Amino acid sequence: MFQSFDAKSSPDTGAPRLADLRKELRAEGLAGFFVPRADMHQGEYVPASDQRLAWLTGFTGSAGFCIALLDKAGVFVDGRYRVQVRQQVDLDAFSPVDWPEVKPADWLREMLPDGGAIGYDPRLHTPGELRTFEKGLDRSGITLQRSDNLVDRIWSDRPEPPKDPMAPYPEDLAGESSAEKRDRIAKRLKERGQHAHVITQPDNIAWLLNTRGTDLGQTPVALAFAMIEDTGAVTLFIDPEKVDDDLRVHLGNEVAIRRPADFGPALESLSGSVLVDRTTAPVWVADRLRTGGAKIIHDTDPVALAKARKNETELAGTRSAHLRDGAAVVEFLAWLAAQGHAPDLTEIDIVKRLEAFRADTGALENISFDTISGSGPNAAIVHYRVTEASDRKLATGELLLVDSGAQYRDGTTDITRTIAIGVPPPEAVHAFTLVLKGMITISRARVPKGTSGREIDALARYALWQEGMDYDHGTGHGVGVFLGVHEGPQRISRVSGVALEPGMILSNEPGYYREDAFGIRIENLIVVHAAEALPGGDERDWLTFETLTWAPIDRRLIDPKLLSEAERAWLNTYHAQVMELLAARVSDTARAWLADACAPL
Amino acid sequence: MFQSFDAKSSPDTGAPRLADLRKELRAEGLAGFFVPRADMHQGEYVPASDQRLAWLTGFTGSAGFCIALLDKAGVFVDGRYRVQVRQQVDLDAFSPVDWPEVKPADWLREMLPDGGAIGYDPRLHTPGELRTFEKGLDRSGITLQRSDNLVDRIWSDRPEPPKDPMAPYPEDLAGESSAEKRDRIAKRLKERGQHAHVITQPDNIAWLLNTRGTDLGQTPVALAFAMIEDTGAVTLFIDPEKVDDDLRVHLGNEVAIRRPADFGPALESLSGSVLVDRTTAPVWVADRLRTGGAKIIHDTDPVALAKARKNETELAGTRSAHLRDGAAVVEFLAWLAAQGHAPDLTEIDIVKRLEAFRADTGALENISFDTISGSGPNAAIVHYRVTEASDRKLATGELLLVDSGAQYRDGTTDITRTIAIGVPPPEAVHAFTLVLKGMITISRARVPKGTSGREIDALARYALWQEGMDYDHGTGHGVGVFLGVHEGPQRISRVSGVALEPGMILSNEPGYYREDAFGIRIENLIVVHAAEALPGGDERDWLTFETLTWAPIDRRLIDPKLLSEAERAWLNTYHAQVMELLAARVSDTARAWLADACAPL
Repeated sequence: MFQSFDAKSSPDTGAPRLADLRKELRAEGLAGFFVPRADMHQGEYVPASDQRLAWLTGFTGSAGFCIALLDKAGVFVDGRYRVQVRQQVDLDAFSPVDWPEVKPADWLREMLPDGGAIGYDPRLHTPGELRTFEKGLDRSGITLQRSDNLVDRIWSDRPEPPKDPMAPYPEDLAGESSAEKRDRIAKRLKERGQHAHVITQPDNIAWLLNTRGTDLGQTPVALAFAMIEDTGAVTLFIDPEKVDDDLRVHLGNEVAIRRPADFGPALESLSGSVLVDRTTAPVWVADRLRTGGAKIIHDTDPVALAKARKNETELAGTRSAHLRDGAAVVEFLAWLAAQGHAPDLTEIDIVKRLEAFRADTGALENISFDTISGSGPNAAIVHYRVTEASDRKLATGELLLVDSGAQYRDGTTDITRTIAIGVPPPEAVHAFTLVLKGMITISRARVPKGTSGREIDALARYALWQEGMDYDHGTGHGVGVFLGVHEGPQRISRVSGVALEPGMILSNEPGYYREDAFGIRIENLIVVHAAEALPGGDERDWLTFETLTWAPIDRRLIDPKLLSEAERAWLNTYHAQVMELLAARVSDTARAWLADACAPL
Repeated sequence: MFQSFDAKSSPDTGAPRLADLRKELRAEGLAGFFVPRADMHQGEYVPASDQRLAWLTGFTGSAGFCIALLDKAGVFVDGRYRVQVRQQVDLDAFSPVDWPEVKPADWLREMLPDGGAIGYDPRLHTPGELRTFEKGLDRSGITLQRSDNLVDRIWSDRPEPPKDPMAPYPEDLAGESSAEKRDRIAKRLKERGQHAHVITQPDNIAWLLNTRGTDLGQTPVALAFAMIEDTGAVTLFIDPEKVDDDLRVHLGNEVAIRRPADFGPALESLSGSVLVDRTTAPVWVADRLRTGGAKIIHDTDPVALAKARKNETELAGTRSAHLRDGAAVVEFLAWLAAQGHAPDLTEIDIVKRLEAFRADTGALENISFDTISGSGPNAAIVHYRVTEASDRKLATGELLLVDSGAQYRDGTTDITRTIAIGVPPPEAVHAFTLVLKGMITISRARVPKGTSGREIDALARYALWQEGMDYDHGTGHGVGVFLGVHEGPQRISRVSGVALEPGMILSNEPGYYREDAFGIRIENLIVVHAAEALPGGDERDWLTFETLTWAPIDRRLIDPKLLSEAERAWLNTYHAQVMELLAARVSDTARAWLADACAPL
């Protein structure tokens, strides 16, 4: 199993660790210290060696932070984690704070009426994050102050950082040599008069150097830092234990390999204009560059944008991965259907069976994220992760929401299906159909070149809005190729002004959540293509979406009367394609079920 | 007539004036001088006394600028004015430049390989505009330099600035006293620690002080400047000839009246934080503030935002204005229908007749902009303005696009109807129906609080996009109440991140334009309302739109097969309302026509 179901932490260790931390605060003359969830890479996953927030407080959620003061310690968590934080931390030692409703600055003003200095580790915070913290501290006497990491000082049983190897990723899957990629990036730097670019995100390094790794499990990368100069020369900062001869040969002479400890001095040795993405690079990077006299240019990471535009080889691999994954999902759906209207199954059983069907493909490298398996009211919790404590039995008349994905060497998948267990209630059918309309509207869309995600997000919501319903998450995120299941810069979201470009992979996943009742989400991955003008239409540059995900959408949850003719036609065509593409790839039992599930509406 | 049909200028005077300007350039040691179209107020209309661009070059378009060098003078105009500029300027003296395709910086680099200083009048340019100019001048040796206005030096026959009175606007139309408005703005300034705010836009002054005027004709304002302090005290900078005792009584003791020449010294006397909207306030304002030692805070003009949220009285007035205007438009449409399939009419006849019907209401203060009356291919020119030279006869089988509006004392209107003359071609019916679908989609929309214009603009385009069609303008602009027919900050446009708020009036005007063939636009005004949650829907804050504009949409141009049931229902309900609201307000002949035009589809 790639997923565990325990709570991963205990509240018992929090109080003594906090006491140790406070000794350090006093020694440093600080009024408090920030403990974030992120490491230097600011990614979704953090290795055990950098899980400072969890180690100190017990809280293991994917977002949040602690501000430890001398007599109070606030654990700031958002709506997803209000319940979990109270189960995981010692409430005598730590105070959960409702964030972002309560701003750190306002909380600090209340706690520290006489002011004081709050320490932070500049390696762990981006400039933007600090600016948000600092907002509202004017004239409070409270200041933020760079500091050694005080948690690291007291963390005696700290695990070793992961030492898994960085491995070459073959060109027949990457579709472009690393040398060509480096040339492209170097050329772009040169054109803009930028001498070098600093890369702190491991998936961007993996793309640039055609490498992969297993340091983070569900995102197949090796942890490292890098910089690329306008000559194309790259310096990779990585633990030597992670590097073998194969990798050295793969990287070649143009890529220098140095120890992580050399990263800081190397930043200080840079001169001229240096590109830094301030949304992902910690303050420490800019500090070191400034110390060395470089001129910092803030801009979007050009590697992230290049990585987002998949080439034909990557898309071919992704299509293969989705056919393989779709067949596994169909086996799972057919198996679930065979359990009848009142199956003797829990949410955890669902996770295990689904992973087993994926493992049966023989190609599963990992799951791409912890499967969300939510039944009944649990599905209304958008980022639900089932644990032994929360596990719930499937019940007839309820919906089951399963959001899952896989890492295969040729591609990354992410699919959500919501399934009726027994006969679904009419309000769930109504909501499901509205969500489906939104999902189809995006799938069918033709948009002019230059359109960004924030311009089309509402297209997925209009049908729900008309009925006074909405969902509190974006419609889609970028997806990598055997890389992060969440990657930027493209998104379908009201906050994303990044123009969609051919080759970008996005999720298309509207939903609807009724608290304490049910949750619905339907998710396919799509890829952006340049499209010709239509006969009778304008001579413009158009974009359309190709659907990558293949698995039936539960017809028992659809009210056909609510679909337009075009929407019904899309669904019937989609189901016919699912049947055509997957019939030969699944077992006989699954094929019989699939034929029914894909019948025209 | 409030509209004229002449070309308004002659090319003959350009060359000698340019020669005079070049003498000044040499005297100042400048390589060139910028001549913009805007005055200090940066508004849509410019009084004759500030039409420097037209006086120098002969070009009278609503956007563009001239860069006059010692041996070349470029007149930069966008796609709307490529033909017009060539008719209006002396092509031996001036060179039209395709802007924004050709950037001023690139043009300057080519013209001035050895560099040089380009003068500009800091009273006439915003910081943002200058930044755009300066982009790309790096390392060119070309610099921008503040300068006296060299055009003003040579402009011997310059007209006097308008001296029309500033008149009180009664509270029974404004719905809120000026004192209350000033208190609101002052309170907001105080809350943010801002000492004062500088107002350079006459419509914002008109709203704040409950005044109107006739300096600009189609926008009923008096030209002036103002500043408001956090105490609520206002200083109004205005020519004394425009102020009478009535106005003095209306303004009261809290509003000090000073001469325009005192504006600069008054800016220099301000201290502390001063709010300036850099999108509308010229560089000169910030210059003077800095000279005086004030700290400049750049932010959106709070008066513009307060003005945008109409109160109940303003909305009631606007509804009355739209019923009056709708009745006049119906008289016009009925009259046009009575002329038969091949009427002996030109575009100018249409403009005259429509204005006459509006004048017949007895309440017409002015038109709110020059009527766009485009037949056949002329309608494909988005900002077409008919002149004696371009005037075209209506022809059977063609479309007529009429975009027009009125200024009444209780409200401002703006309506576009596209009318079939005879039997329309099928491709026009197809396009019209797609445009109508977009217009209805916005009209029916329910959106969550916080939604901005750029999130819903695509809703109006989806039906067109699906057929490979689009239009090159925003879907809607803000509209005032007996003020500007274009006002900010709200828009329905891919570039507008301003959240929609209750009371904001917007146009809803998708279109479609096929070059050399036909043009289609359908425009109603709508107003944003807060809406309750729907039964079975979410407990959220919602916004909906109320339609303000009442006039039939040409049913001969609609293909009912392309409408959804909901769209058809919206149209039939709309037409039933038009009939109900206007039947008693129009002549017997018009009523008979209206009943037909409003019959259900």
